[in-house]
Amino acid sequence: MSKTNKSFIHVPKPTLERLKRYYTYFLQLEAEYISSEELAEKFNIKPEQVRKDFTYVNITGKPKVGYHVPSLIKELGLLFGKEVLENIIIIGAGNLGSALAKYSGFEKLGVKVVAIFDNDPKKIGSFVGELAVLPLSAIERVVKRFKVKIGVICVPEESAQEAANLLVGVGIKAIWNFAPVPIDVPETVIVENQDISSGILTIKHILDKK
Amino acid sequence: MSKTNKSFIHVPKPTLERLKRYYTYFLQLEAEYISSEELAEKFNIKPEQVRKDFTYVNITGKPKVGYHVPSLIKELGLLFGKEVLENIIIIGAGNLGSALAKYSGFEKLGVKVVAIFDNDPKKIGSFVGELAVLPLSAIERVVKRFKVKIGVICVPEESAQEAANLLVGVGIKAIWNFAPVPIDVPETVIVENQDISSGILTIKHILDKK
Repeated sequence: MSKTNKSFIHVPKPTLERLKRYYTYFLQLEAEYISSEELAEKFNIKPEQVRKDFTYVNITGKPKVGYHVPSLIKELGLLFGKEVLENIIIIGAGNLGSALAKYSGFEKLGVKVVAIFDNDPKKIGSFVGELAVLPLSAIERVVKRFKVKIGVICVPEESAQEAANLLVGVGIKAIWNFAPVPIDVPETVIVENQDISSGILTIKHILDKK
Repeated sequence: MSKTNKSFIHVPKPTLERLKRYYTYFLQLEAEYISSEELAEKFNIKPEQVRKDFTYVNITGKPKVGYHVPSLIKELGLLFGKEVLENIIIIGAGNLGSALAKYSGFEKLGVKVVAIFDNDPKKIGSFVGELAVLPLSAIERVVKRFKVKIGVICVPEESAQEAANLLVGVGIKAIWNFAPVPIDVPETVIVENQDISSGILTIKHILDKK
């Protein structure tokens, strides 16, 4: 069932989403083995789904013991490019940008926040964790020096497009957009929209149907 | 193609995710009409997908004009229970909890943050926007007074289960969990996990394959 040449695997999006959730969970798990049943219960899905999901990485479980967690972490790490440390920058030093800048889980995901930027003179020079807030004029220098490919947009929605233009202008390859509006970028730039409010609609939808 | 009795519609999860994204986009859109082509371009999908998605709500587009945005908002609002205003509470007045407490988009989604709680004496009594940070001991009173069904967890991962227990203990029906760990709750309680870091793994995965 397992496939060996990962570079040719197309992982369907819903599977990818579950694999990401397993991965972040495994990174915190102390147990050495986990069964598909345990994992299924944790994530409120069926054990068959778990087993099917793991056919996308090069791992099979042992009968009655389960999956070897360090091996799962290694294979999933490869799938998500953990080994490649990516330097990222954040535009917007408000609450959300600051929360991300201080987020303790990035290192485990192979990501490092190297700078946070804002256009508010009152914020520039103040500290978010260990990072000084830098003016927007410093972006190009930082991107070049730290070979940054990923920029994070944490500005209010009315400034999101402007921030995107700035990131594209300095040669960013991928934008992680936390502003709740779509942004226009050239086709060559990857955009991942992260709507932090989306979960509430799912909850309301389920509560309504009860 | 349209279905009239919405209470029996099961919307597949990927469709639901797209409908949520369209919905939050429409809420900010000034145009009265939008075509499936325009919408598809905005969200980087195929127009056929957009048209298929809208078969789940009671709306069809006009040839050469497109979909009537106010009607889409109305139907999607029904799907997501917009008409029901839900009071929600936030546990954790750190950067993320504060960002959510000040999030301007909730009202449009039929949601109101009525209180934010923390166990840090230094934070209790301080203000996040217009809300005073309350001690955890006040949760039960607030939940009863404002008939709160939804609790939001914005605490560090090591305190997430404790926060969940507290919410379950005061009769919360649904938990919106921003801590990057699964929580254990009784089966009757809805849990929606919102991992704010998940998008970066998608980006790294795509960057790696390029």
